[in-house]
Amino acid sequence: MERRLLLPLCLCWALSPGGAERSGPPNLLILLMDDMGWGDLGVFGEPSKETPNLDQMASEGMLFPNFYAANPLCSPSRAALLTGRLPIRNGFYTTNAHARNAYTPQEIVGGIPDSELLLPELLKKAGYVNKIIGKWHLGHRPQFHPLKHGFDEWFGSPNCHFGPYDNKAIPNIPVYRDSEMIGRYYEDFKIDLKTGEANLTQIYLQEALNFISRQQASQQPFFLYWAIDATHAPVYASKHFLGSSQRGLYGDAVREIDDSIGKILKHLQNLGIKENTFVFFTSDNGAALISAPKQGGSNGRFLCGKQTTFEGGMREPAIAWWPGHIPAGNVSHQLGNVMDLFTTSLSLAGLPPPSDRQIDGIDLLPAILQGKLIDRPIFYYRGNEMMAVRIGLHKAHYWTWSNSWEQFSQGIDFCPGQNISGVTTHTQEEHTKLPLLFHLGRDPGEKYPIRFSSSEYQEVMEKIFPIVQLHKETMVPGEPQLNVCDKAVMNWAPPGCEKLRKCLELPRSNPKKCFWPH
Amino acid sequence: MERRLLLPLCLCWALSPGGAERSGPPNLLILLMDDMGWGDLGVFGEPSKETPNLDQMASEGMLFPNFYAANPLCSPSRAALLTGRLPIRNGFYTTNAHARNAYTPQEIVGGIPDSELLLPELLKKAGYVNKIIGKWHLGHRPQFHPLKHGFDEWFGSPNCHFGPYDNKAIPNIPVYRDSEMIGRYYEDFKIDLKTGEANLTQIYLQEALNFISRQQASQQPFFLYWAIDATHAPVYASKHFLGSSQRGLYGDAVREIDDSIGKILKHLQNLGIKENTFVFFTSDNGAALISAPKQGGSNGRFLCGKQTTFEGGMREPAIAWWPGHIPAGNVSHQLGNVMDLFTTSLSLAGLPPPSDRQIDGIDLLPAILQGKLIDRPIFYYRGNEMMAVRIGLHKAHYWTWSNSWEQFSQGIDFCPGQNISGVTTHTQEEHTKLPLLFHLGRDPGEKYPIRFSSSEYQEVMEKIFPIVQLHKETMVPGEPQLNVCDKAVMNWAPPGCEKLRKCLELPRSNPKKCFWPH
Repeated sequence: MERRLLLPLCLCWALSPGGAERSGPPNLLILLMDDMGWGDLGVFGEPSKETPNLDQMASEGMLFPNFYAANPLCSPSRAALLTGRLPIRNGFYTTNAHARNAYTPQEIVGGIPDSELLLPELLKKAGYVNKIIGKWHLGHRPQFHPLKHGFDEWFGSPNCHFGPYDNKAIPNIPVYRDSEMIGRYYEDFKIDLKTGEANLTQIYLQEALNFISRQQASQQPFFLYWAIDATHAPVYASKHFLGSSQRGLYGDAVREIDDSIGKILKHLQNLGIKENTFVFFTSDNGAALISAPKQGGSNGRFLCGKQTTFEGGMREPAIAWWPGHIPAGNVSHQLGNVMDLFTTSLSLAGLPPPSDRQIDGIDLLPAILQGKLIDRPIFYYRGNEMMAVRIGLHKAHYWTWSNSWEQFSQGIDFCPGQNISGVTTHTQEEHTKLPLLFHLGRDPGEKYPIRFSSSEYQEVMEKIFPIVQLHKETMVPGEPQLNVCDKAVMNWAPPGCEKLRKCLELPRSNPKKCFWPH
Repeated sequence: MERRLLLPLCLCWALSPGGAERSGPPNLLILLMDDMGWGDLGVFGEPSKETPNLDQMASEGMLFPNFYAANPLCSPSRAALLTGRLPIRNGFYTTNAHARNAYTPQEIVGGIPDSELLLPELLKKAGYVNKIIGKWHLGHRPQFHPLKHGFDEWFGSPNCHFGPYDNKAIPNIPVYRDSEMIGRYYEDFKIDLKTGEANLTQIYLQEALNFISRQQASQQPFFLYWAIDATHAPVYASKHFLGSSQRGLYGDAVREIDDSIGKILKHLQNLGIKENTFVFFTSDNGAALISAPKQGGSNGRFLCGKQTTFEGGMREPAIAWWPGHIPAGNVSHQLGNVMDLFTTSLSLAGLPPPSDRQIDGIDLLPAILQGKLIDRPIFYYRGNEMMAVRIGLHKAHYWTWSNSWEQFSQGIDFCPGQNISGVTTHTQEEHTKLPLLFHLGRDPGEKYPIRFSSSEYQEVMEKIFPIVQLHKETMVPGEPQLNVCDKAVMNWAPPGCEKLRKCLELPRSNPKKCFWPH
């Protein structure tokens, strides 16, 4: 952030009534969805209106219609959430080619650098017990694991639940409890690709309820990062929810998640700790329209989806919930970002953000608790390139790209049914001298570029240009972590494999530049 | 309707607690918007969330996400609302060319036939006092006026507020009080096309509040049809609301309407008659994307807009509100249609629908009061052609057409930024033998036709074909009213013009076939 206008509202919890016996900073619960789109919730206009628990969460809390991912792809967005820093700073990007989305498949060599300070590491200083349930995605090699970066507990997996693989060319993805694998997807944790049936959300729910119960009995606050993945292709739901939605399998997964979140919030209430637990719901990137309609969600009326820096790729559903502290049923037009969850969580814990590095996340508490609007830019990156920036209601595209003609002609379409001439381009188009400008209030769908000759364009760009210039001039990129791939680093023999007799033989190391097509 | 499964829930009001002194059937208030789209309300996902009063109305009443206009254009949709019959039956269509949208501009010769029974005519039998405020649009020649068709009072105009005209080639549109004009748009009722300022919504609001107050003092129930037009291009708002929205002028108009509806509902509450007044909010057709973004609204994620039979052209925002009777905060997935307001209103008044003609509207009270789901088709007509039908969650397109290549090449685009190959066609494509089938739950945006070879296609079409066959076989089209145009019938000398010295000289009569380009 170029402008740090506000000091954290330290120790605000000390003033709060608190519903629990324990005094001190509140528990922190981040509910991070996977590929869920802005338009997937009833409260954001999904026509089937099948998310009664999330809609109620919004009616009891605060809705953020202008909340963003830090990147249109999972790994970088998640790395940004936990570090409070843009992927270009924390290393979760590639320089192999210009403006390419990169993430952490099994063959990736890199991961979250030790030099990065993660939220759970910092929260430990305030006595928090930290758990991640679900997808890590910040590097699957042991040195990158959650327990090496501040988490006390982990139940879940390091990579996406792709598969099944053959264990010869590619091993199945392991599922971990803490530092050791306890099985693999498809082998020990079933996902029926034909029916879409998998019990994983129920397992993740139970893990959450158990952890919360356990922590409630202790005198320490907890941070629970519930990073479930049922809405990421291959989409799944448990038997009870299959066929329960108007929307097909994707909707079944959403219904199960909605139901689970209802149970978690109810659990907080039943334990008497809802007024002492700050809960934030959001998603890691826009809906994967490439997988729609059966395996992908909805970005509402926003343009395109996951992988792109149009609104559909990065605008996220977001709800803050903290009964007794957040006034019920409010809407905040604060521009927010998953990176803000880092700074806001620290603020709630009474901790200052690190002062030895650039932090991009801001403290949202003035917006959440006092209804303030904090002036701040949203940067839309794709790999090593700042593609666009939002200031207020205006968004300027410095580069446009959906995906290559080559890919598009193969049927890979990040904007199905949508085509805005000169905007959803299939070549990387540079507009750095004369950015394409949109007004997201009048035109949330980015369909009507503002005329270059208009006074609106002149006035707005005069404001935007220096902000971008400062951003670029002061940018110190981190060492790119997503450049090198090697089959030898795949999950052949994860820690704990010996006990399970699930160790596989490693192939010879052969590091290569990863190929990132879009 | 091919299937009339349910008898009206007659006299249900007799069982109700009732908040007013007067007993008997409830007052009826229909709030009909003009060109407002499904996506224009916060509760339907408009990102600015600027409709707090309508959102609250929904939270106190019942939301209908599956509610439809009877036609993608104003006049036919309104004629259908007031007759309970499809435009092809009540005459509000043209046979000049295949599948053309037609309405009632000034040069139209036709209007609502005397043979049609309008809702206010029937309500008189139950003692209702009926008023229309706003746009009539069922014919501007005196024999077609509201007071000739059951309304006791009228404040508003017969046509759209297009203009200003020159009073030589085209006269400005008159504004009526009851049977006589009291002025003309632009001359006596100002609309500033440059700033968008007009005080009309405030005038319409005051008319509504006054009428309600007056009626409250009487012992008769009222029917108020509040058919305002601020969201129809040229869009307008009064000074206080100009610049109040994130969405520009269109949003300003929506904010003023939202504010006005809040005041009307509050007025009902203050008068102690909210439990004795059934209120229904909806719109006449989808948002006019051709006028977007400055003069047009949003259809959310639905395909295309006004003029088309895709969901964006006919899916409407809809809320029923009747405190003490309708359970608060519910969502009904009942397929509804503006024509149902005819039958439902009669049911509320304790009147049977006419038995001497086909009525297409159904009584929604079982859905509204008892949460039932009534199986019924939705037919999507364009002029003289049934373009599509919805049964349950499936929609079958028998014909597809956005508009002609000729028009499209001139920049007339009913689907800006959207292009679904083979669906948003620019030639009229016939699919009557093998309709294009969509699942509106998985695919509300009509992007993914279901494969002809799939079992889903076979099963669903087996159900749809006989319904359509019966519909077509039993269809008795009315005499088309929108075929003939004549400059001589324009508003040159409306009743009352003498008193105002606003009579203009009529040109010689020269009746012609109207030209309807799309």
